[in-house]
Amino acid sequence: MSQTITIALDAMGGDSGPEVVIGGAAIAVDRHPDLRFVIYGEEDVVAPVLAANESVRQVSEFHHCGVTVQMNDKPSQALRKGRWKSSMWRTVEAVRDRRAGAAVSAGNTGALMLMAKFCLKTLPRIERSAIAAIWPTTRGESIVLDVGATIGADARMLVDFAVMGAAMARSVFGLDRPTVALLNVGVEEIKGIEEVREASRVLREMDHPGFEYRGYVEGDDIGKGTVDVVVTEGFSGNIALKTAEGTARQIAEYLRSAMARTWAARLGYLFARSAFELLREKMDPRKVNGGVFLGLNGMVIKSHGGTDAEGFASAIELAREMARNDLVHMIADDSAFDDAAATGRMRAASA
Amino acid sequence: MSQTITIALDAMGGDSGPEVVIGGAAIAVDRHPDLRFVIYGEEDVVAPVLAANESVRQVSEFHHCGVTVQMNDKPSQALRKGRWKSSMWRTVEAVRDRRAGAAVSAGNTGALMLMAKFCLKTLPRIERSAIAAIWPTTRGESIVLDVGATIGADARMLVDFAVMGAAMARSVFGLDRPTVALLNVGVEEIKGIEEVREASRVLREMDHPGFEYRGYVEGDDIGKGTVDVVVTEGFSGNIALKTAEGTARQIAEYLRSAMARTWAARLGYLFARSAFELLREKMDPRKVNGGVFLGLNGMVIKSHGGTDAEGFASAIELAREMARNDLVHMIADDSAFDDAAATGRMRAASA
Repeated sequence: MSQTITIALDAMGGDSGPEVVIGGAAIAVDRHPDLRFVIYGEEDVVAPVLAANESVRQVSEFHHCGVTVQMNDKPSQALRKGRWKSSMWRTVEAVRDRRAGAAVSAGNTGALMLMAKFCLKTLPRIERSAIAAIWPTTRGESIVLDVGATIGADARMLVDFAVMGAAMARSVFGLDRPTVALLNVGVEEIKGIEEVREASRVLREMDHPGFEYRGYVEGDDIGKGTVDVVVTEGFSGNIALKTAEGTARQIAEYLRSAMARTWAARLGYLFARSAFELLREKMDPRKVNGGVFLGLNGMVIKSHGGTDAEGFASAIELAREMARNDLVHMIADDSAFDDAAATGRMRAASA
Repeated sequence: MSQTITIALDAMGGDSGPEVVIGGAAIAVDRHPDLRFVIYGEEDVVAPVLAANESVRQVSEFHHCGVTVQMNDKPSQALRKGRWKSSMWRTVEAVRDRRAGAAVSAGNTGALMLMAKFCLKTLPRIERSAIAAIWPTTRGESIVLDVGATIGADARMLVDFAVMGAAMARSVFGLDRPTVALLNVGVEEIKGIEEVREASRVLREMDHPGFEYRGYVEGDDIGKGTVDVVVTEGFSGNIALKTAEGTARQIAEYLRSAMARTWAARLGYLFARSAFELLREKMDPRKVNGGVFLGLNGMVIKSHGGTDAEGFASAIELAREMARNDLVHMIADDSAFDDAAATGRMRAASA
């Protein structure tokens, strides 16, 4: 008998709520029959959608929650009103209580992060949790973190991010020893802030068995896929992610308006339609939907609030993959090496 | 009789040296007959290129320089060996001595920045100079600064950047009162670093007559053209710029390979060729070539090292525009308002 994998779902999160969440679950369970769900939400709205999705209902346990976190609630406000009883809190709690291997919500990012930290707590040797994004590249996919969990990071935190991102790359991409680099700027003499330089020194000395440290990369290396894991602090990481999204949208708009301009272009578009569809698929943000919270005692995946069922399904599949490999334990183990190495160095230094 | 505008050119900068620089000057003077040049470089290599470009030779003064800053020289090393005598130094010096209205070099960015600072000095009320980039958007063009002159910036520097960027937007885009915003991240409660919040408060209170302050924008607002001027510190600004460049290149590559995949796509490409050319033009980095050093006692424009003559011409045209409007004095005046306002506030507070 094969193992099943249970994912906790917040049916109320996102711009479209249960329709997208349950619809995504239906797509995911169709592709991965080993999936099981625990679903949290308001019975009135969720029950009819579940009834219409028999394949999901059959493999799910549903729990009614009277409180829903709104997309525009402030995180602290959401925590006050939603702790213990909101669908978001209970989705995360299912992971803490080992009733699910990972949690997925398309709700309010700040609220989800705060609840996840409160409920799951940070892993013993990790200073701060981070949000990791999967970034499409010309070579395939890379992981970029932190894309906005916290602002500013010292050298120690950047090293933690490297360890966590590498574990995720092993888990999600199936790599043995992913390559890792720190994001930096190109002007020679002033190359980067002090924390980045210090993190680089530590990562080089550490020589972690779980990844190969490759030094610095610049912003344009992310899209090239120069390394598997790109590490930066949350402010610049968030700006990089959003800027790339904006640029992709901008070019898509240029392309659309250029193709509609003349009859010849419209005809050309018809002939090349399959090529454009391929391009659209390549640029499809739904394919890599999901920010992953790393560094907590449990896996939580944030799906885009505006995604559709296909996008939500891909967030569930990402959750499934990380639950299956027990990424939380991989990170806990890898950060232990980190500490052992640091202690070793300190001993050596004081000897 | 119409006024002429003199631009100082470093003929030795960039990956291809005099060919691109003089070729660019030829294109620019053809479009703007009011241009005059002072050109610095090694006579052996520059003289033959000048001889082949009669239209440039006729409006130029050439000065031989025995020393050339290399693209991979460290800035401090370049300054030591190139001060007083390199083509790069003398190009900047021509601006200091008022023999040219602006300087253009495609050489080593770090070296150029350091020489420009040493030679021209920072404007009296400006804490730190910045590099501004012109960014193509779906609405037209915006200015983003700082894209890498310095790492980290306090609130006062961010305010200076706003004032300088707005003056440049008035000069280059011909706007009366450009809109300005601070680049920030989207997670509510931890919205941005302290310096950004403080700068926002000052900008709002200041209510500068030279621009309209609009608050925060996120990374994806840059490409949308939400505001005319986007202000950030150099680390995140450099990462945003390079990430956008990387994303554009990545999508161009996707598109190229998609269009070559099937015969129908290739045929479609032929029909839609004019549309693709329009797209290429829209995405052409040469059209907005040039990082502008702001905050110094003189205008210096850094052209991309790898640009061609068309790209260099657009950097010269940008220099011409800013020299014509005397952007340096605009910035000096605008930063005086800044100071007067701050003094006013302090008086009000102590009264």
